[in-house]
Amino acid sequence: MTLPRVGISIGDPAGIGPEVTLRALFGNEALPPAQYVLFGPRLLLEAEAEDCGLAADFRRWKADGSCAEPGVYLRDLPAPEGPVNKGVSGVFCGRASFAWFEEAVAAARRREMDAVVTAPVAKLSWNLAGIRWRGHTEYLESFYPDAVMSFWSDRLTVALLSHHLPLREALARVTPPALARLFRVLRECAAGRAAGAGFEILVAGLNPHAGEEGLLGTEERDIIVPAIEGARRAGIPVRGPFPPDVVFRNALGRPEKIVAALYHDQGLIPFKLTAFETGVNVTLGLPFVRTSPDHGTAFDIAGKTPAAPGSMIEALRLAVTSVTA
Amino acid sequence: MTLPRVGISIGDPAGIGPEVTLRALFGNEALPPAQYVLFGPRLLLEAEAEDCGLAADFRRWKADGSCAEPGVYLRDLPAPEGPVNKGVSGVFCGRASFAWFEEAVAAARRREMDAVVTAPVAKLSWNLAGIRWRGHTEYLESFYPDAVMSFWSDRLTVALLSHHLPLREALARVTPPALARLFRVLRECAAGRAAGAGFEILVAGLNPHAGEEGLLGTEERDIIVPAIEGARRAGIPVRGPFPPDVVFRNALGRPEKIVAALYHDQGLIPFKLTAFETGVNVTLGLPFVRTSPDHGTAFDIAGKTPAAPGSMIEALRLAVTSVTA
Repeated sequence: MTLPRVGISIGDPAGIGPEVTLRALFGNEALPPAQYVLFGPRLLLEAEAEDCGLAADFRRWKADGSCAEPGVYLRDLPAPEGPVNKGVSGVFCGRASFAWFEEAVAAARRREMDAVVTAPVAKLSWNLAGIRWRGHTEYLESFYPDAVMSFWSDRLTVALLSHHLPLREALARVTPPALARLFRVLRECAAGRAAGAGFEILVAGLNPHAGEEGLLGTEERDIIVPAIEGARRAGIPVRGPFPPDVVFRNALGRPEKIVAALYHDQGLIPFKLTAFETGVNVTLGLPFVRTSPDHGTAFDIAGKTPAAPGSMIEALRLAVTSVTA
Repeated sequence: MTLPRVGISIGDPAGIGPEVTLRALFGNEALPPAQYVLFGPRLLLEAEAEDCGLAADFRRWKADGSCAEPGVYLRDLPAPEGPVNKGVSGVFCGRASFAWFEEAVAAARRREMDAVVTAPVAKLSWNLAGIRWRGHTEYLESFYPDAVMSFWSDRLTVALLSHHLPLREALARVTPPALARLFRVLRECAAGRAAGAGFEILVAGLNPHAGEEGLLGTEERDIIVPAIEGARRAGIPVRGPFPPDVVFRNALGRPEKIVAALYHDQGLIPFKLTAFETGVNVTLGLPFVRTSPDHGTAFDIAGKTPAAPGSMIEALRLAVTSVTA
């Protein structure tokens, strides 16, 4: 069997992305055997490694399959066209971090990579640089409209019906076809990764107490219940809607359950509360694996205090085990 | 100093309310000295105590101050006019549980009680009985429009801008006057109860990432930030808006912080996840103290398996300490 090939975009160079990437790869934590391929500029990574006191060594990556040993490789890419100031968003960092990510995705689309792991980018820098996507997932959605944002940890697994939208707009996305698509992608892509037998999708309601029999909202009765019943008829193991303030507690510590959350914070509030520093963001519904740490660029500490690589390590591990699953 | 007088409405007789009330008062947990006055029918409570194997003894309550010793008293009230079936909602239970609660509140309004503790009622039974309020807090709001629903535990304290509303309607309640009122009530009623120095209100944003500088929503910029700035000018210690998936984690284990949540589930999802079975619901902005356990009638287990009185015990304790604070 061939080694998994994991492309890693190093994230915004003004944030903690390059640091947590290098600490994950060259720190003391054991990673599963794979070809880890960094997408970024050699000089920048060497300087960052020196700042972190890490002995980093990158082999040159060739896509022709001639280098088939486990280890850390580098796809050397152009550096930002202007100065990088740690902790400060800006055009040059936005443009460069997008280009590195774009290259990693292109390699995966050419099947030169089995997985892409993305270190955090600054949405504001992408915006300043004129990048039209708000984040990694939005870019992936432009190729793969069925992409689903999900979050994985030992404690809780959550998938989102929609993600980076104003709450008002997110409510308008709670529709029968959107729910049907979410349930289908989860069955196809999440069932194999969920640990243990009894894989099941638990659906959160939209309203307090899941609408309380229509007293506190009608979306459950009119939209969500029919969508769940339709999916069940198609053989998808899905139940609900459950009161939002109950369903996450009930899924806690049960890795065979995945909670379908109907808007960003409904899923992220409980996830970040229970899985700080070890959570992994996983995009489902793609022809390759994509994971990322669930933290941001942490501009407040970037370049000042050491950043913890725990979430990046879990993202790399989950990428490899998903490829080999 | 006189003993706190704590009126207790025993909740829906088909649910676990009478049981957790009796287990809290006659179980093995020590409660602070007070006059605990049950509002409910003697025969029903005696039968419930026997079912629970508890040696319960109720002294007759007189409002004239002639019985000034600590202990458990009873204000004997009419039983339901029809049969009580454990675990089943119905008109008779709805009507009776409302009447008992109404009597306890009336006594507090006459200053015969310093606090009211409410065991859970079934909103559906109230609805079937034609009660026009959705729950305890809505009834209290009809007298006291500044009432604020809040949730207290050792781990986290949360106050809600609105509570039992469809999410769509809750969004429309995020207005400058509503926020100003919330911050004022919290300063007046919560500061004295919050443990430790450094009392502070932390405000959650409405949108993902608190709107991310306008990229993910405008309510933060247009409504929430100006309301916070106005309150700060009035000397209220309030900060935010913070990303909703970060602020609860940051308030965890800091009893001097109270998180202002902008809709029911934003506050209740993290609260129930961190404070299961020991959380207390507190209504602020009333001329008397009102607390209640943060669970419901638990019709699924009522009369079948023993119900845990932990949250009721905490509700009674917090009522007494709030009166004496």
